[in-house]
Amino acid sequence: MELRVVLCQPRNPLNIGAAARAISNFGFQHLRVVNPYDPAFREAVSAVGGAPVLRAAELCSEVAEAVRDCTLVVGTTAIGNREVQQPITTLAGASAIIRANRGPVALLFGSEKFGLNNDELAFCHRLVHIPTSPRTPSMNLGQAVAVCLYELIREGEAAAGPAGPKPVAGSDTEQITRMLLDVLRESGYTNRIVATSIELKVRRFVRRIRLTARDAPLVLGILRQILWKFRARE
Amino acid sequence: MELRVVLCQPRNPLNIGAAARAISNFGFQHLRVVNPYDPAFREAVSAVGGAPVLRAAELCSEVAEAVRDCTLVVGTTAIGNREVQQPITTLAGASAIIRANRGPVALLFGSEKFGLNNDELAFCHRLVHIPTSPRTPSMNLGQAVAVCLYELIREGEAAAGPAGPKPVAGSDTEQITRMLLDVLRESGYTNRIVATSIELKVRRFVRRIRLTARDAPLVLGILRQILWKFRARE
Repeated sequence: MELRVVLCQPRNPLNIGAAARAISNFGFQHLRVVNPYDPAFREAVSAVGGAPVLRAAELCSEVAEAVRDCTLVVGTTAIGNREVQQPITTLAGASAIIRANRGPVALLFGSEKFGLNNDELAFCHRLVHIPTSPRTPSMNLGQAVAVCLYELIREGEAAAGPAGPKPVAGSDTEQITRMLLDVLRESGYTNRIVATSIELKVRRFVRRIRLTARDAPLVLGILRQILWKFRARE
Repeated sequence: MELRVVLCQPRNPLNIGAAARAISNFGFQHLRVVNPYDPAFREAVSAVGGAPVLRAAELCSEVAEAVRDCTLVVGTTAIGNREVQQPITTLAGASAIIRANRGPVALLFGSEKFGLNNDELAFCHRLVHIPTSPRTPSMNLGQAVAVCLYELIREGEAAAGPAGPKPVAGSDTEQITRMLLDVLRESGYTNRIVATSIELKVRRFVRRIRLTARDAPLVLGILRQILWKFRARE
């Protein structure tokens, strides 16, 4: 299982250090941090055991960059009142799917105060929640990372899953999304007023349909062709 | 499942706060802190969601006090090179036993730097370890607490276990231990030189034999009688 732990907009460098330590404790390597409050987090943290993971951590300016090579993006949530559009299960329920995925998996954690926002959630294929008490659902970020990683290694490496088609990588998915948005805009489907909500819908849609790696060139070719057609008319 | 999370000699008040928060997140209540480095930990910590648990936390001066009402005492360890005398399993392997136990269970965590020491381990009926990477086995205390509690609630409340005999409470176990030590000392079995190592052996032994609640008065009666006999001769 190739896992990328992605912290979105974390505020507290101590939590980044704690996440790095958990990654190291459970034998993973990759930490990506999207727009941290304090970009100097590497210097700000010194976590026992987390140091090599921290040194190798990638600083990303957007979620798309952090999930570029991932064929599955899983968001974590304390299930608040937000209406989510993706399949949502308990962490335990999803762990076999995560372990059996072909290609790298991104596990997204939102900011300490607000969790994943709608823009970030739109990148997720599915959501998982840790079954916390309804009275105190919100976990500390470092503890949530530890619990999720523990669940993933809990039963050992899953037997190699059924060899389904390889899903499309995150960067291709995002390229498809953006090209599709261009198509919608240039087609007059979207105007400036509704653009943001449409963008989220489209981003979720592209992830929901679970394209395979083979689908990507096809879909991209079609979209490129449509755009060419639009522009050629002008 | 009535659980008491027992932190033995924690140094960092932040970790006590993190433990309290995890206890609250997973729907537990009881935190006991044995000889913390900073006894003013309640004032020193303000953990989101952990506050009621912290306010109700008990400060204990020794492990015996912290496990007094518990019929099962489980120690957590990163399995170092210490030779342990108790059954040791993964956390997942032990969680059914913990959930099915009759009477309160104490889950012991050692200090951040050294884990449980031999004196503390001697109070444990069994040990569990979180399957961390051999290269970075040692977890942050707050994260370890979160992972353990998550495992315990992971499958929901276990069906009420087989109604075996109720095990003896921690305070009775300790009373038996101390009386037995008195017997050994007064019998001449132990001298001052070997007293400490014998004490640990005896403490482990009394826990290993898993007395039932009904056994306690019997054993105590016998030990009391032996002591009376010793003293009557003088």
